[in-house]
Amino acid sequence: MDLTDIRDLYRERGKFAGKEVTIGGWIRSIRDSKTFGFIVVNDGTFFEPLQIVYSDKLDNFEQISKLNVGSAIIVRGTIVETPDAKQPFELQAEEIEVEGLSTADYPLQKKRHSFEYLRTVSHLRPRTNTFQAVFRVRSLIAYAIHTFFMERGFVYVHTPLITGSDCEGAGEMFQVTTMDLDNIPKNEDGSIDFSKDFFGKATNLTVSGQLNVESYAFAFKNVYTFGPTFRAENSNTTRHAAEFWMIEPEIAFADLKDDMILAESMLKHVIRYVLENAKEEMNFFNQFVDKGLIERLTHVRNSDFGRVTYTEAIKILEQHNDEFEYKVFWGCDLQTEHERFLTEQEFKRPVFVTDYPKEIKAFYMKLNEDGKTVAAMDCLVPGIGEIIGGSQREDKLELLEKRMEELELNKEDYDFYLDLRKYGSVRHAGFGLGFERCVMYLTGMGNIRDVVPFPRTVKNCDL
Amino acid sequence: MDLTDIRDLYRERGKFAGKEVTIGGWIRSIRDSKTFGFIVVNDGTFFEPLQIVYSDKLDNFEQISKLNVGSAIIVRGTIVETPDAKQPFELQAEEIEVEGLSTADYPLQKKRHSFEYLRTVSHLRPRTNTFQAVFRVRSLIAYAIHTFFMERGFVYVHTPLITGSDCEGAGEMFQVTTMDLDNIPKNEDGSIDFSKDFFGKATNLTVSGQLNVESYAFAFKNVYTFGPTFRAENSNTTRHAAEFWMIEPEIAFADLKDDMILAESMLKHVIRYVLENAKEEMNFFNQFVDKGLIERLTHVRNSDFGRVTYTEAIKILEQHNDEFEYKVFWGCDLQTEHERFLTEQEFKRPVFVTDYPKEIKAFYMKLNEDGKTVAAMDCLVPGIGEIIGGSQREDKLELLEKRMEELELNKEDYDFYLDLRKYGSVRHAGFGLGFERCVMYLTGMGNIRDVVPFPRTVKNCDL
Repeated sequence: MDLTDIRDLYRERGKFAGKEVTIGGWIRSIRDSKTFGFIVVNDGTFFEPLQIVYSDKLDNFEQISKLNVGSAIIVRGTIVETPDAKQPFELQAEEIEVEGLSTADYPLQKKRHSFEYLRTVSHLRPRTNTFQAVFRVRSLIAYAIHTFFMERGFVYVHTPLITGSDCEGAGEMFQVTTMDLDNIPKNEDGSIDFSKDFFGKATNLTVSGQLNVESYAFAFKNVYTFGPTFRAENSNTTRHAAEFWMIEPEIAFADLKDDMILAESMLKHVIRYVLENAKEEMNFFNQFVDKGLIERLTHVRNSDFGRVTYTEAIKILEQHNDEFEYKVFWGCDLQTEHERFLTEQEFKRPVFVTDYPKEIKAFYMKLNEDGKTVAAMDCLVPGIGEIIGGSQREDKLELLEKRMEELELNKEDYDFYLDLRKYGSVRHAGFGLGFERCVMYLTGMGNIRDVVPFPRTVKNCDL
Repeated sequence: MDLTDIRDLYRERGKFAGKEVTIGGWIRSIRDSKTFGFIVVNDGTFFEPLQIVYSDKLDNFEQISKLNVGSAIIVRGTIVETPDAKQPFELQAEEIEVEGLSTADYPLQKKRHSFEYLRTVSHLRPRTNTFQAVFRVRSLIAYAIHTFFMERGFVYVHTPLITGSDCEGAGEMFQVTTMDLDNIPKNEDGSIDFSKDFFGKATNLTVSGQLNVESYAFAFKNVYTFGPTFRAENSNTTRHAAEFWMIEPEIAFADLKDDMILAESMLKHVIRYVLENAKEEMNFFNQFVDKGLIERLTHVRNSDFGRVTYTEAIKILEQHNDEFEYKVFWGCDLQTEHERFLTEQEFKRPVFVTDYPKEIKAFYMKLNEDGKTVAAMDCLVPGIGEIIGGSQREDKLELLEKRMEELELNKEDYDFYLDLRKYGSVRHAGFGLGFERCVMYLTGMGNIRDVVPFPRTVKNCDL
C-alpha cells in the first residue's frame, strides 16, 4: 500500500508542506466538537505522533467521531505547517477510511499505565510511548553493535544454542530433550539412557558462546557472537532473565590492553549512535524515566575510561569499609555497591578494574606472572556498576591444563579447546556484554522485564 | 598489538609498497632451500594469503625452517611489489617471531581434505580456504540482511526462544526443562507436575517467531526477527538442521503484493552486497564449489521475478507429469522437482507462486475471496527451489476464529493473537527466510552442515 511514513513527514519536513499525503496508523486519542475533530495517530515509524484535523465535510464524520482509541485508520489529506502550535504541522483530512476497529475496553486507554500492568499485555505494550521508545532503541543498539564490529572487519559467528557441554561449569542450565518425560528410557542399571535422546546424549541450552568462538578467532583473528544465552537461575530480581542476548567479541594477536580499548570504543560507539539516531526517544527517557540520563551518557562518551588493578581498588575501598554493607578484603568478589563507589565516587567516570585473584575468576583466564592474579577486566560504569566482563585467555597449553586439574575439570570435555593451544596458539582476549543490561543502561529502564519483548523469568513464560 | 591486517595490504595496496609492516598469522605452507625460504601466511582478515620471503640473514633461520604448518608467527619486514609473480606483492622478512608452535600431526595438512573429514574438526575447519570463504560470507550475508531492513526503518525484534506454545501446531519441538529427569515430579493422578518446572508449565524451543512478531508489526508497522529456531525432526538430509537461524519480516498496512516486493528487494540486496563485498570468496566458490554460481546470482539480481498462481502453475506442471517422480494435481504440495521445473525450465528466473489451497497452508493465512485458496506466496529460485515462504495474514477476527475451529486449534492458546484482530487490526503480511538455506544458495555449498559453524543434527551435537 502506498502510504507515507510519519517518520518521513518529520525527517524531511519542508518537502511535504501543502502536499497531499496518505498515511495509515493507530488512534492514540480522539476528540471532537460538533463540526470538527482532532485525532492523534501513531504509525510506529516515529516516536512523535501526527495530529489529524477533520471536519463534518467528511461523509463519515459521525462514524469517525465514534471511533475508539486503538482503531486503525487510513487518512488522505494535506500537510499544513502550524508554526504557532505545539506540533510543527498537522494533516487536514480529506478522507478517512477505517482499516480496523477497536473496542471501548481496549486495554491501553489514554491514561498512564504502570509498567507492572503493561507486563500483563506484552503483545500490546509496544504501542505505548515508553515501550515504543524502549524497543526502537533496543533495535538501534543491536544495529550499532553490528556496525561497530563489521566496519572493523570482524566476522559475526553464530555459536550453537544447544550444547553437550557446560561452558564454565558455571550457571544452572536448562536441559533440552525429546524424550517422553512420562516414560524416560533407562539403561539396565537404572540410569537414564541418553542414547535414546535426539542427539544421543544429554544436552543443555548454552550459557556462553565463548569457548566455541575462540576457535573462530584463531581462524579469522577478530570475531564476535551476538545471540541468545540462558540461565536457569532461580533469582527473581530486576536484573536477571532466564533468556537474554549476549555479545562476545574475541580477538587474536591481542592482550588485555587491546581488549579494554575494544570495549571502550564499542561502548562509546553505541552511545554516540543512539544519541544521534534516537533523539526523540532519548529525550523522552531523560524527561520521564531517568533524569540526567543524557548528561551521564554524554559524559561517558567523552571520558577516557580509568584503569585500576583489583589490588589497588581493594586498598581504596578498604578505607570506606564503614560505608559498605559487605566489607571488602583482598580476595573478595566486588559487589555492586563497591563497583558503583569506584566509578561514581572515586573515578567519577567509567573504570576498568583489572587483574583479579584467580580464585574468583574462570579457569580460562590468563595467569599473571605473580601466579596469584589473572589478566581479567571488568568495566564499571556510573549508575549501574559492571557492564562488561572480559579477560585475556590462557594461551599456554601446560598452564591451562594445570589450572583445569586444580579445578578438577574433565579435560576430555575440553579436547577441542586444548587443541587451540596445540596448533598455533596465539595471545588472545575477549569480553562479554549482556545486551539487555546495555539496553537498560542506555534507556535508564530499571527492570530487565521492560527491555525484553517477551521476558522469560522464574515461573513466567507467557506468550 | 600493533599489527597490520593482510586485508589492508590488499585493499590499500599502493600505500604499503616499500614500507615496513608487522603482521601476525598462521602458516599455511612453508618451503626452504639452504639460504632462503617461503612461507604462506593467512591472518584471517582476508581470503588471499601473504607470501613471506626469509633468508639465512635471520638469526633463527634454522628454527623457522623447521616450523610446522599451523604455527603462528609475527613477521616484521618490507612490502615489495612483485608485478611478474603470481601474487601482487610479498613481505621480505627482517624478523620472524614464533607466537605459537604447531605439531607435525596438525590435522589440516596442505593436501585437500574432504568436507566429511573437516566436519570432524569443526573447531579447525574455518582455517581452510573453503570454510574461510563460507563463514566470512555467512557473516556478510547476516549483515546485509540487517542493513537492508534497518536502512528501511524496520525495527529488529528479539522474539523468545523458550516458549509455552506451539506456534503452528507444526514441527516437532524440543522440550526445555529443569526438572530432575531421574525423578520427575508427579501430580496425584500420575501426570507430570509442570508447576514444579522452572517456568511453572511445559515449555519448548520455538519453531517460529512469527506470531509474536505480528504484535510488534501492529506497533512499529515494519519489523523483523533474525534469530535461532529449532526443529526436532528426525530427518537426516543435507538440508535439515535441528538448530538454524531464521529471518521473519512482518509488515503492517501491507498485502501480499507488498510482501513479494519486499522479498524480491531483500534477495537482490543480499546478492548485490555479497558479490561486491566478498569478491575473492565468490570467485573461489564459482571456481571450486559451484561452477556457474556467479552467473546464476547475477542473473537473479537482474531479473524481474515472475508471478504465477498455484492454479496456473499446476496447469503448467500437469503437462509434464511424465517427467516427475511425484505427479501433480490441484491440491497437492509442490515438491522440489516441481519447484525447480517452474523456476529453471518454465520461467528461467525466480518466480513467486501464489494463492495456494488453504488445506496445505497454515491457519493464519488470509483466505481469498474464492474461499478455497489463501494469500500465500513461495519464492522459487533456480538451483534450489523454494527459498522464501510467506503470506498475507488473516486480519478479520471472525474468519480467523472460524479457521481455527475448523482445524480444532485451542483458541485460548492464541488469546494474544486474536487480540491483535480486536484492537485496530490492519492488513499485514510477512515471510520467512531460512538463513542457512540462503547461505547455501549464495555459496553453492550443498550440505547445511557445511554452512553452520557447529551444526546440530540427529545424533550429532559435538562441541
